[in-house]
Amino acid sequence: MPDLQRVVSEIVDEMRARTDRGEVATYISELGRVDPSLFGLVVIAEDGTVAAGGDCDLPFSIQSISKVFTLTLALGKVGDRLWRRVGKEPSGSPFNSIVQLEREQGIPRNPFINAGAMTVTDVILSGHQPREALGEILRFMQFLGQDPTITIDEAVAASEQRTGFRNRALANYMKSFGAIENSVDYVLGAYFHHCAIAMSCRQLATAGRFLAHLGRNPDTGHSVVQPERARRINALMLTCGHYDGSGEFAYRVGLPGKSGVGGGILAVAPGKASIAVWSPGLDPSGNSHLGRLALEAFTKRLGWSIFGM
Amino acid sequence: MPDLQRVVSEIVDEMRARTDRGEVATYISELGRVDPSLFGLVVIAEDGTVAAGGDCDLPFSIQSISKVFTLTLALGKVGDRLWRRVGKEPSGSPFNSIVQLEREQGIPRNPFINAGAMTVTDVILSGHQPREALGEILRFMQFLGQDPTITIDEAVAASEQRTGFRNRALANYMKSFGAIENSVDYVLGAYFHHCAIAMSCRQLATAGRFLAHLGRNPDTGHSVVQPERARRINALMLTCGHYDGSGEFAYRVGLPGKSGVGGGILAVAPGKASIAVWSPGLDPSGNSHLGRLALEAFTKRLGWSIFGM
Amino acid sequence: MPDLQRVVSEIVDEMRARTDRGEVATYISELGRVDPSLFGLVVIAEDGTVAAGGDCDLPFSIQSISKVFTLTLALGKVGDRLWRRVGKEPSGSPFNSIVQLEREQGIPRNPFINAGAMTVTDVILSGHQPREALGEILRFMQFLGQDPTITIDEAVAASEQRTGFRNRALANYMKSFGAIENSVDYVLGAYFHHCAIAMSCRQLATAGRFLAHLGRNPDTGHSVVQPERARRINALMLTCGHYDGSGEFAYRVGLPGKSGVGGGILAVAPGKASIAVWSPGLDPSGNSHLGRLALEAFTKRLGWSIFGM
Amino acid sequence: MPDLQRVVSEIVDEMRARTDRGEVATYISELGRVDPSLFGLVVIAEDGTVAAGGDCDLPFSIQSISKVFTLTLALGKVGDRLWRRVGKEPSGSPFNSIVQLEREQGIPRNPFINAGAMTVTDVILSGHQPREALGEILRFMQFLGQDPTITIDEAVAASEQRTGFRNRALANYMKSFGAIENSVDYVLGAYFHHCAIAMSCRQLATAGRFLAHLGRNPDTGHSVVQPERARRINALMLTCGHYDGSGEFAYRVGLPGKSGVGGGILAVAPGKASIAVWSPGLDPSGNSHLGRLALEAFTKRLGWSIFGM
Repeated sequence: MPDLQRVVSEIVDEMRARTDRGEVATYISELGRVDPSLFGLVVIAEDGTVAAGGDCDLPFSIQSISKVFTLTLALGKVGDRLWRRVGKEPSGSPFNSIVQLEREQGIPRNPFINAGAMTVTDVILSGHQPREALGEILRFMQFLGQDPTITIDEAVAASEQRTGFRNRALANYMKSFGAIENSVDYVLGAYFHHCAIAMSCRQLATAGRFLAHLGRNPDTGHSVVQPERARRINALMLTCGHYDGSGEFAYRVGLPGKSGVGGGILAVAPGKASIAVWSPGLDPSGNSHLGRLALEAFTKRLGWSIFGM
Repeated sequence: MPDLQRVVSEIVDEMRARTDRGEVATYISELGRVDPSLFGLVVIAEDGTVAAGGDCDLPFSIQSISKVFTLTLALGKVGDRLWRRVGKEPSGSPFNSIVQLEREQGIPRNPFINAGAMTVTDVILSGHQPREALGEILRFMQFLGQDPTITIDEAVAASEQRTGFRNRALANYMKSFGAIENSVDYVLGAYFHHCAIAMSCRQLATAGRFLAHLGRNPDTGHSVVQPERARRINALMLTCGHYDGSGEFAYRVGLPGKSGVGGGILAVAPGKASIAVWSPGLDPSGNSHLGRLALEAFTKRLGWSIFGM
Repeated sequence: MPDLQRVVSEIVDEMRARTDRGEVATYISELGRVDPSLFGLVVIAEDGTVAAGGDCDLPFSIQSISKVFTLTLALGKVGDRLWRRVGKEPSGSPFNSIVQLEREQGIPRNPFINAGAMTVTDVILSGHQPREALGEILRFMQFLGQDPTITIDEAVAASEQRTGFRNRALANYMKSFGAIENSVDYVLGAYFHHCAIAMSCRQLATAGRFLAHLGRNPDTGHSVVQPERARRINALMLTCGHYDGSGEFAYRVGLPGKSGVGGGILAVAPGKASIAVWSPGLDPSGNSHLGRLALEAFTKRLGWSIFGM
Repeated sequence: MPDLQRVVSEIVDEMRARTDRGEVATYISELGRVDPSLFGLVVIAEDGTVAAGGDCDLPFSIQSISKVFTLTLALGKVGDRLWRRVGKEPSGSPFNSIVQLEREQGIPRNPFINAGAMTVTDVILSGHQPREALGEILRFMQFLGQDPTITIDEAVAASEQRTGFRNRALANYMKSFGAIENSVDYVLGAYFHHCAIAMSCRQLATAGRFLAHLGRNPDTGHSVVQPERARRINALMLTCGHYDGSGEFAYRVGLPGKSGVGGGILAVAPGKASIAVWSPGLDPSGNSHLGRLALEAFTKRLGWSIFGM
């Protein structure tokens, strides 16, 4: 085992010294107020060793990273029937594209683009009130992150409710194809709120451990999903986890990962570690600029690519 | 190490017993004449152990699998400058789509869709006669496959020359954007011919060994590419290697792989083995139907997914 | 002057005898209840002669035909500045396509596709309450139709409010580009209501007279718009008035016209007559099937094409 | 009858004084050498009166204007069966777009976009050698233009043959759908050559007279097509004759017309006159910039819009 803490500290120093930090997302006004110089990195190895650096205990808006966990919940509810309503293929389009939906009649390409994540949220709702479904999602995150204080940033959720016109368009569009079962307002309410969950790198890396270890948290011994399902969620993260930058992320980092416009990335080194990184500035594909560079530096130094070690 | 030969034999038996075999590609008339009941599988482990079954010494048209090797050659010639002319993202479209090219002004999404592979062929040509470029590609395949008898099936190449209108459209379209430097006829001539290389599963699995072992053939000790480049080619195969079925392949098989419409698939288990499978019938995405099922059964039995073991 | 009443009566008889009547629109549930055997035709010549036949005094939902009149109102308010926010080109897409909006950043192709008509409604709203804007539109229709009893079918409007998900998607999508100034709910409220105006063929033909006579109702002498503007609205109806069937309508009928999914068509024979036809069954492009056939028969019999007489 | 010659002379003077002349097409190198200051205008009234001004006897490359005449020929050969192979709807896309073909499986939207014109050329070829088909087209133009010296500019045709990659892509693409019957080389050869026919404004206005007068040249009495067919060709010119600027042309000029990238426009005032204008500089949609402005000024001054007089 390499000296993880030393590598983490070096990378934090390197990233803090950089002046290219990408652009903080401004389309959600609350996110636009985040300090772009913040940076956090946490790696939790299989044996529970935690290597942490930077602003690793500051909660940030996990945004689309929540989609990994809602996918896990929905697969738990309906299993492979989920794939009748959403595809598994990379989209070849920006995260909020509506074009693909027109061609494919309301079936989103994968569960990580916005439209697909709304389908997943619709499955979790399945007749419940948004409040109940959200409660279930939040408790799942608290359980996985091992911290009952994890909560929803209501200001971020309210900001999206007010200005998320593109997402509102996507949801109504799917509804017009009959591809959403609950009311559009319920789906969007639950969706905006689970995207507004705030977590620190430490909490997020903890929550992702089951994906690194065949569905099981090696510390607690809790089994979250079967091994095959963990592998498959990782496969989806690899091919679709970074929107239109998924190929680039696979090419450079070589690990399954999921990004959010809040600047966080959860990455999984199967059999080795769960990793969370946060830097608010985004690249043109909407993924954390320094977050990706940090992960690239990290996997290069440790030789942790899933594509050859 | 599991008993590879036993697993291979079982899978060959299972696949031969199946009646769903997909549809043999007919758009290249020569390919349409292949017996759909043929099936071959070869696995070569890191230590050189070969597990083989079925029609594993019968040569078939490798078609798009050749693109992995032309990509390797082109990266050797121009390095990362290649990425100025072709992207690294999954296309979200069928393999021969022309729509994406219009949107992105002649820059193909990745080197494995037809348009991107033509860009790669154009790079290899770089002012040479097609005959010379083809000679170089063929010698590279003979070297990697460790068999100087590997050759081009001229009937298949001639069939494509006569009827490959869609590919001719793609090449002319890219030329109209200035995205192809050599003459369209040269590029298509070289492209059709390297796609028409005929290899057996045994030869193909041998040729792919450098990808499984950080760029080096562990038997001969020959280094073909640097470790990082081997990882990156694997990453591209994972995200883009099966056209519009790449996500499904990653989800079900969990290994980097590249398919061809001749019914072959080359798959790579990093650190473990190089695998070649062949069954001529294709699924609707243009990938070998039984080939994929065989690989899925194989990785499931051995637990060889790159997404968690 | 031909014997208009005889021609109208003959065509009404012919159309009533036909068994191919198209399909009544069902996506607005209220429209789905209309009797498909109804048929009305009214022609009002320049000298005020009225030729009428069939169910010509039964009000129907004018739907998209209202867009000709809201366009007239909006041009009256902002003149050619309107064209900064909406194009003048045929869309080459179905009436409710969202794809074009993504490519052109929220600028609809023309004022007659749904998105473009919402832009026009947004211009008419310009800070007013929907109630006031609707009042203005309704009074304009009563004035043009010379009948103060013309009103809005609230059941149709309510039906669209409940189920018009595709239109709600379009409006939110434009809002996301900043292409709509008022609130989405206001714009949709006004839009759904002006589409739900109910008029008879007689009222509609009366309302369209200014378009046939250089902007002026020849009976009352009221000038509604300048001659050039009347010509231009006619040009837009010719190129864009029948969605993805506009070319076919121009080819077969040879008159400017605007259709609605309620089964009505307003057609204009410049210098000669204003024509309204109604048959609820639609063709696959969403235009009245028998309405178009009736107009084709009519112009053929009278030689009234604008493309040569 | 207004004093046509005076109006023509005034407009020629006005246009020659303008400094905004658009951009001469350079993608066909021969066209790029034309002097952008040239300008010609010819109007031939029903009674044979000719009003002419500027460079009205200088031949220019008629390019896409030839498509009006090949359409006329093809309709003469196969009648309405032509519409099984090509649509009648405006395309909503640039003239050389390939996207629409992918969506509609090789059926071009209308006979005036490049793909559709190739279909028309394919119909005229129907098994003949390109030389014979071209001879037929050229003789038709000489007959209509009443000038046996009208010929093909071989340098322009050769230039297109060498560099027309986009058109070559379109033709191969249609061939891949089986939408072209003859060899791609034959179709392109004939297409490039009929686009390279050179005519003066005087010859072109003469050739277009049958369209203005119900299919008949009023001087010679020769009937070229039936009245209904003349109307319908005019309707297609109105809706599709100016590529992605057809709506704008209808809105501003109000006459059926067909433009070519050589800078010519043929316009038809039904019952009144045939008009040809030429100015080599193009607007962004690929239509003659001053040509359109001249026609707009002309129809405004005479009140000759088909949308109201």
